[in-house]
Order: sequence, then structure tokens, then C-alpha cells
Amino acid sequence: MTYCLAMALDEGLVLASDSRTNAGVDHISTYRKMRVWQKDDDRLIVLLSAGNLAITQAVVAILEQNVRADATDHSMLNVDSLQHAARLVGQAVRQVYHHDGKALKEAGVDFTISLILGGQIKGEEPRLFMIYAAGNFIEATPETPYFQIGETKYGKPIIDRMVNTKTDLTSAAKCALVSLDSTIRSNMTVGLPIDLLVYRKDTFKVATHQVVRDHDSYFEDLRTHWGKGIRELFQRLPDPPWEI
Amino acid sequence: MTYCLAMALDEGLVLASDSRTNAGVDHISTYRKMRVWQKDDDRLIVLLSAGNLAITQAVVAILEQNVRADATDHSMLNVDSLQHAARLVGQAVRQVYHHDGKALKEAGVDFTISLILGGQIKGEEPRLFMIYAAGNFIEATPETPYFQIGETKYGKPIIDRMVNTKTDLTSAAKCALVSLDSTIRSNMTVGLPIDLLVYRKDTFKVATHQVVRDHDSYFEDLRTHWGKGIRELFQRLPDPPWEI
Repeated sequence: MTYCLAMALDEGLVLASDSRTNAGVDHISTYRKMRVWQKDDDRLIVLLSAGNLAITQAVVAILEQNVRADATDHSMLNVDSLQHAARLVGQAVRQVYHHDGKALKEAGVDFTISLILGGQIKGEEPRLFMIYAAGNFIEATPETPYFQIGETKYGKPIIDRMVNTKTDLTSAAKCALVSLDSTIRSNMTVGLPIDLLVYRKDTFKVATHQVVRDHDSYFEDLRTHWGKGIRELFQRLPDPPWEI
Repeated sequence: MTYCLAMALDEGLVLASDSRTNAGVDHISTYRKMRVWQKDDDRLIVLLSAGNLAITQAVVAILEQNVRADATDHSMLNVDSLQHAARLVGQAVRQVYHHDGKALKEAGVDFTISLILGGQIKGEEPRLFMIYAAGNFIEATPETPYFQIGETKYGKPIIDRMVNTKTDLTSAAKCALVSLDSTIRSNMTVGLPIDLLVYRKDTFKVATHQVVRDHDSYFEDLRTHWGKGIRELFQRLPDPPWEI
């Protein structure tokens, strides 16, 4: 499993992903799920992926190949809008499906992939898309400013409570880490290291890209504070008016 | 969807369920998912159900019929152990499958049901079982003293943090309500009223059975405290050492 999330805020974007991949509990490995394309003063594009690892790697390989070929209309470094970039990702997904879908079906393997694409291209505001296995996609809006893919449920309540478009980048980054912490605690197939990338609007470069590994002192600190605080908060909850 | 949970603690049992049933978002209704059988000074048995409503009602109908018939070995009021009671529930599930399974399959409807059975029968400790759609079941242990069925993920992190067998009944009841609150917030197909039942070991009667409806003042109080506390806790989290 995997857990990735991304938030589109007034100040910019926050994107985070775990690094665990599993094909059964006896085959758990570490694979990074975040790819970044950047061109100074022009664009920053980040892709997060969840689903079948062979499929997601094949999709990324197509995108990378088009970047290397400097394909006018098919390179993440040349397209003129993030919507166009999302379309490229969707096309790559369909290309992989066209190539592998039948064989996967025969082998009884579902064609599972979902992706989050976020970033900013000069001339546009920062944007955030979620791309489905069918290659179609949706865009985040002020009412729903975040996307999650993979093992999404454990880490959703805290985002619902804390994040809206006015949330500052630091708070949003903390919320992403707390959301990942809750997920990692509840699902052993989601694990460290975490890739956390923060992008500040109109800078066209990475504000910070943290790789949170085992024993990361800040992450340890955060989860200790959070766990202790939750327990204390729970102790202080009002007692019921009924007798037990 | 549905969300039910139950905890087996040193002091007794806490069981809770929501009351929403849906067949598509345009067909949402209220159905209670908790059934109680009780015989003074002898036993208290509680059944929670999730899954296809027609299937769960058919299962309960069989169990009720056997209670009314006062069937020696097949009545929840006569069996001599909770394991035997769990076997009765499993048999009822298989009977419904035998009767309806083929027609459901032809109609493209999955045979989905899961149940939690908790209680105490004189001569035994309180026990807690989870019964699957195949009619087989597992029992809670001190290491894993709780079960959830239905929409389980949103409400799991708080139980994992707060509940072990030493938890007192009042704290466990509060935790069950917070867990349900998190689930209700995140999934519109889980909803009020909540059935909350607390059983104190060796009493063979209900300690309290609360039906938490809209505008229940204690539940409102609890969720306000919790929501405010979580926000305050979040504000107090340490800032990251890295620059954004």
C-alpha cells in the first residue's frame, strides 16, 4: 500500500508520500513515490503515485522519456499549463493500459493506479490534479483543497479538521506529517521514509524537500507531542451524565 | 455503510453502533444494528451487524425464531457458552447463504455480512467474537481487545491509542463515542442515532444503554471539547527546524 497527500493553499502547495511498497506482507520494499520536474523561473511540477508499482514505474518511464526527448508537446518541461501536464500523465496511463492491460487481466491482476500532480507553470496559479486509472482527472478547488491517494482513511480526519486554503505552509506541512503518522501507526504497509515537499507560490523552485527517515528528531518530536497531547485531551473530556 | 465497534475490558464490555443504512446515496435510512438478549442473573448477549441489510435481518430473524421456539440447543437464551452462541450466529449466516446466496449472486449482489457478538453467560468470563460471512469466527484476546465492523478506518487510530484491557468502562465508552464521531464526520453513510451499551462484568444486565440522537447534549459537548482540543493541540505542535 501507499499513502500520498497534497494540499493546494493560498500560499502554495504541500505534497507528501510514504515509501513502502508491498506485494503481500512478505515482500515489502522501499520505493520513493514522488517525482519532481523543475525549470528555473518557469515551473515546478511534482507527481505522486499509488497503486501497482510496475504500472506506476511504466507511467513515469514514459513521462521521463518524453522529457529526455524534449518532445515539444509531450514533455513536462515544455507544456504550457498544468492541465496539459495532467493530460500527459493520463495519456501515459492509457498507453501503459494499452500495452499491459490485457496481460494483467489474464494474470488476474487489477490495473490499479492513481496519481496526484501538483505544481505551477509560469502564467498560471499553482494547481493540483488527481489522475485516475482511466487516465481522466479532476482538479482541486477552494472547497476541497486537498487530494489523497492510496490508504487514505486513517489520515483523513485530521486534514478535514485542520486544512483549508488559508492554512499557512508550515501548519499544512505539520498536518501532512501528523496525517502520515496516523496512517503509519494503523497500517503496516505504509512506512518511512516520508518525502515531504513544500512549494511557495510564484517561486518556481522547491521551498523545502525533507526526507523523513527512522529516528528523524523532528518527526519523533512531533509524534511524541501529538500522542501525549491526544492522551491528555482524552483524559480531560467531560464525563457522561449517565451512570455506568 | 455502518460502523460498529466493541471492546472487551477487564471491567466488562462496551458496544456501540451507528444506525445508518444505505443502498446508494439516494436511499439512506435509519436501522438499528444492535440486538440484545438477556436473562436475569444468567446472561447478557449483544449482537452488532454490518453488511447487506436483507442478509443481516434474515440472520437475526432466524436467531429470534429459535429464541421464541425456546430451542434447547439453538436459542441464545439456552446455550451454555458464548462460543456456542457465536456458532449459532455462524450457522444462521450459513442458512441464509444456503437460501439466498445463489439468487444474490445471479443478481450481482455480494453476500456481505459481518457481526460482533459480545456478552457473558453464567460460568464464563465476558467474551467477544467477530463472525464472518462464511459463518466462521474469531475471539478477542487481551492483545487485541476490540473489534470493528463496517467503515472501520476513520475511527481506528483513537482506539489504538487509548484502549487496552485495563481501560475503565467510562473511558472506553467515551472513546467509542469519539471513534464514532470521527467516522460520522468523514463518511456521510454513517450516522446518528448511536446505540451505546455498557456491560459490567458479572452483573448479567445492561449497565447503561444510551441512544444518542441529534442534539444529544452530552455527545455535542464531547465533540465540541474534542474538536477544540485537537485544534489547540495542533497549534501547540513544535515548528519544524527547516526553513520554508
